[in-house]
Amino acid sequence: MKTRAAVAFAAKKPLEIVELDLEGPKAGEVLVEIKATGICHTDAFTLSGADPEGLFPSILGHEGAGVVLEVGAGVTSLKPGDHVIPLYTPECRECPSCLSRKTNLCTAIRATQGKGLMPDGTSRFSYKGETIYHYMGCSTFSNHTVLPEIALAKIDPRAPFDKVFYIGCGVTTGVGAVLNTAKVEAGATAVVFGLGGIGLNVVQGLKLAGADMIIGVDINNDKRAWGERFGMTHFVNPREIEGDIVPHLVALTRRGADQIGGADYTFDCTGNTTVMRQALEASHRGWGKSVVIGVAGAGQEISTRPFQLVTGRTWMGTAFGGARGRTDVPKIVDWYMSGKLEIDPMITHTLRLEDINQGFELMHHGESIRSVVLF
Amino acid sequence: MKTRAAVAFAAKKPLEIVELDLEGPKAGEVLVEIKATGICHTDAFTLSGADPEGLFPSILGHEGAGVVLEVGAGVTSLKPGDHVIPLYTPECRECPSCLSRKTNLCTAIRATQGKGLMPDGTSRFSYKGETIYHYMGCSTFSNHTVLPEIALAKIDPRAPFDKVFYIGCGVTTGVGAVLNTAKVEAGATAVVFGLGGIGLNVVQGLKLAGADMIIGVDINNDKRAWGERFGMTHFVNPREIEGDIVPHLVALTRRGADQIGGADYTFDCTGNTTVMRQALEASHRGWGKSVVIGVAGAGQEISTRPFQLVTGRTWMGTAFGGARGRTDVPKIVDWYMSGKLEIDPMITHTLRLEDINQGFELMHHGESIRSVVLF
Repeated sequence: MKTRAAVAFAAKKPLEIVELDLEGPKAGEVLVEIKATGICHTDAFTLSGADPEGLFPSILGHEGAGVVLEVGAGVTSLKPGDHVIPLYTPECRECPSCLSRKTNLCTAIRATQGKGLMPDGTSRFSYKGETIYHYMGCSTFSNHTVLPEIALAKIDPRAPFDKVFYIGCGVTTGVGAVLNTAKVEAGATAVVFGLGGIGLNVVQGLKLAGADMIIGVDINNDKRAWGERFGMTHFVNPREIEGDIVPHLVALTRRGADQIGGADYTFDCTGNTTVMRQALEASHRGWGKSVVIGVAGAGQEISTRPFQLVTGRTWMGTAFGGARGRTDVPKIVDWYMSGKLEIDPMITHTLRLEDINQGFELMHHGESIRSVVLF
Repeated sequence: MKTRAAVAFAAKKPLEIVELDLEGPKAGEVLVEIKATGICHTDAFTLSGADPEGLFPSILGHEGAGVVLEVGAGVTSLKPGDHVIPLYTPECRECPSCLSRKTNLCTAIRATQGKGLMPDGTSRFSYKGETIYHYMGCSTFSNHTVLPEIALAKIDPRAPFDKVFYIGCGVTTGVGAVLNTAKVEAGATAVVFGLGGIGLNVVQGLKLAGADMIIGVDINNDKRAWGERFGMTHFVNPREIEGDIVPHLVALTRRGADQIGGADYTFDCTGNTTVMRQALEASHRGWGKSVVIGVAGAGQEISTRPFQLVTGRTWMGTAFGGARGRTDVPKIVDWYMSGKLEIDPMITHTLRLEDINQGFELMHHGESIRSVVLF
């Protein structure tokens, strides 16, 4: 079939809107009509050429929502008409990772997904006879795409595509980091470094978990109102305090009889390795957990004195918020539908596919929390 | 009273055996006759002058066992004749750390202990009128010493001093890192870097926890027999393999359907920051936990790519094996008495106080697992 998509023909070039060829679903695969897709920093990272695993030409996009049009042989959990969210982290429920019950990082299709291909080692996309690669197993910048059954979460059909697409990456990553990775408990203190889309979702995850003190850190004062909108209780602009941010935060989190200070949980949502270190060191002696969410540039490293760990801090990270896609994504959609989580205010811009490059510009200039592209 | 002790009058000098003055216990304090004490790398670290918090003149030693001779006003949990193990990590059961139930790092007397003083800000030791500092709140290189009540674990009076003194540091640190910090489950795979006293106790902790695969890593082949003695199942000498140790260990830990590899748990018992990184990176994608036990030199840092954390590895540390001294140390003594843990073979040398400097030499040359000094 033919479909319309924004193709990344090469790094550092604007996406081009073209009509291309899409093969139908093979065994275990599903054809999905994408109704809405978000533009995420990870798409921009790959498009910039900085992603060592980036492949071109490809169809970017990994955060979307749509409707099943057709299923391949052997597909049992989905049927045409089902509403779905594509999963860049699939959930096969059969591999050692899924069966470990300790991680969401399903490895069933990792090798081919990393090569921009479907599990059988081929692509479904082509343009004028040339292969176009899949991206993160999703390629939601296409009006139609093909995914493995295990990479689709079936969701409430009443959920609006132009909002819940965001659960395909940003919402789940932020909220999941709090609930699945850090396992924050009611009454906790927390610091969120970086109040972009991920940071705001961490903030609302902390509110949902009942945290007492939710400190947002950002160098942009405009983010204060955004953070407060989702439950932030304190705001710190590192450029407006005296001295180092770490002792400032440690002092801010001293409570009651505890004269040590430091947050119970800290989250890096910046991708900046210096901030990652600050996040670890601002966590509480004895039990502080610091979660890396942001993606650092290629080759960059984090460091600290091992004393920080020996005195009880834990350094950890999260991918897709530790969420098992087919199990947890429908639950998060339900939480949105029941009002436990908010998404609408974060969708700051709505674009047509033709205007998708404008969405990247808005993001680069910090003017959007999330832009949605509607087909 | 007068007592005999090995005094560190200055860094880098041999200890001197002298008779010095010891004040009796004040309120909340206990006078203990030390019957046996071990010589630990931490004592040597301080004596070397490399410990930025080292104070002189002082009485080193933090791993011992003895008998209560006298209690000060208000002491309720101990009486003369009780057998005790001094705790460099006390357990007050009242401070925010103790009450958090998340850490063993009691902060009740941290400030004064770090200054070589009792909680009232004074020392009980003096020599020819000059103050001698306490060390790690213990000073077990003295035949008699005074400790706060909260820094003494009451143990089974049948337990032999010349063995269970080792529970005051090495045994509890190694076994506790497995049970309290990493929380290793039966069937797990684990790698222990460094097969000195701590490493061997990690090995026996792993055996106790039911680990399937216990890989010991050491550059000294003599340690193979030691590791196997306590439950090690595989030995790797990094100098005798081809290529890097990390992929070697990852390959070694691939089991059954799991083609990823990496150990469920890794432990650094070397204090070498390069090894700490290897330990993290040899742990399993998705769920590997790596525990830093060794103490690094002043100013040294650990580093890695944050990708290691984002893909599910956790970097943590442990002090005193995460053990709550008054609660867990008596339990470990009981485990020794009932044969669940072994100590006897690890006590390789028995010395008199006069020969304590010889014990440091044996340790420096790697000739001892643990030397015990008897009074």
